[in-house]
Amino acid sequence: MLKKIKIPDATIGRLSLYSRYLIEAHEKGITTVSSQHIAKATGVTPAQVRKDLAYFGEFGTRGVGYNSKELYNYIMKILGLDKHWSVAIVGAGNLGKALSQYKGFYQRGFDIACIFDNDPKKVGKKISNINICHLDSLNEKVKELKITLGIIAVPAQAAQEVADKLVKAGIRGIINFAPINITVDENIILRRVDLSAQLEYLTYYLEDA
Amino acid sequence: MLKKIKIPDATIGRLSLYSRYLIEAHEKGITTVSSQHIAKATGVTPAQVRKDLAYFGEFGTRGVGYNSKELYNYIMKILGLDKHWSVAIVGAGNLGKALSQYKGFYQRGFDIACIFDNDPKKVGKKISNINICHLDSLNEKVKELKITLGIIAVPAQAAQEVADKLVKAGIRGIINFAPINITVDENIILRRVDLSAQLEYLTYYLEDA
Repeated sequence: MLKKIKIPDATIGRLSLYSRYLIEAHEKGITTVSSQHIAKATGVTPAQVRKDLAYFGEFGTRGVGYNSKELYNYIMKILGLDKHWSVAIVGAGNLGKALSQYKGFYQRGFDIACIFDNDPKKVGKKISNINICHLDSLNEKVKELKITLGIIAVPAQAAQEVADKLVKAGIRGIINFAPINITVDENIILRRVDLSAQLEYLTYYLEDA
Repeated sequence: MLKKIKIPDATIGRLSLYSRYLIEAHEKGITTVSSQHIAKATGVTPAQVRKDLAYFGEFGTRGVGYNSKELYNYIMKILGLDKHWSVAIVGAGNLGKALSQYKGFYQRGFDIACIFDNDPKKVGKKISNINICHLDSLNEKVKELKITLGIIAVPAQAAQEVADKLVKAGIRGIINFAPINITVDENIILRRVDLSAQLEYLTYYLEDA
């Protein structure tokens, strides 16, 4: 299942960045871009851009550059973003609500299909047109709504149990926002988003600066 | 100001991970750990662990390993986390609320000092004991509460204006959660957290898997 395991994670992250720049360039009418342009807009070196792209084949014309829309389309295909993905959020607290309304998801083809919670006061309500469903209906809803990805937005102590339920329901990829490590079967793709680690990049640079 | 600019960003991110494992190990009574232990717990190779640590000096004893608490303390100092940091969140919407209650921040020494908004219906209220202040009071509050870091949790169209205000108020590091690129003076440390890029790591691996 892990078909492209040898590509560094950081390359995948940069492809995301490159694609955002490329569609912007295309929309501004810039049809051809160089690795220098991409590098400058995304804060990396031109050599890094070329190296990242080289993992996936030959692109562009030497001395000319890349067609912005073509390269955008190609990267979107590499990232699996040439189609829509159906996503479940578990946890209808503030984080779950915030994520369900995050415009960045929709821009990239992610549809939040349902928010799950086990609080009877929340179940049956809607958050900006997305239904809050009971966690007990997870299995049937995952099938019905063809949900592939799950986002864990519950408190730390509930995160592992929720992960187990998502896997059991047939979810194939999970993002964990709870500040705790969870484990899943190795054929499930799991990423933890540690929000405080983001602040730690700042403090590293600011410390005794 | 950018004192350690040559260290890769990914190394900083991994130091965060290592420190989390080390304090867990210490709390479980494991006083000595090897680079193999750290690597296994954090999903990298032992060579990577040694390389990351080598940027900062010589640690541990060959053939024995590292003292978990000592290495933890040292990494926390490298990351600037041997002290508390005062943080402002701008935007008292769902994301701002979620971030203000995120336990992971407090665990690592980040104090959310104030949440800023310009909605009169929100200003003056509290979110779990944190005051919501008017954005117009940003300058004075930053001084009064010794705020160094700012988190932007407003809609995309307001993000640049908020960033400008944070910089003017004397903030030195910014995390931008809005799904848009903003620019700041080069002596300000800026990071964008793109939540949809996190999902794109999943779809990359799941695409035609």
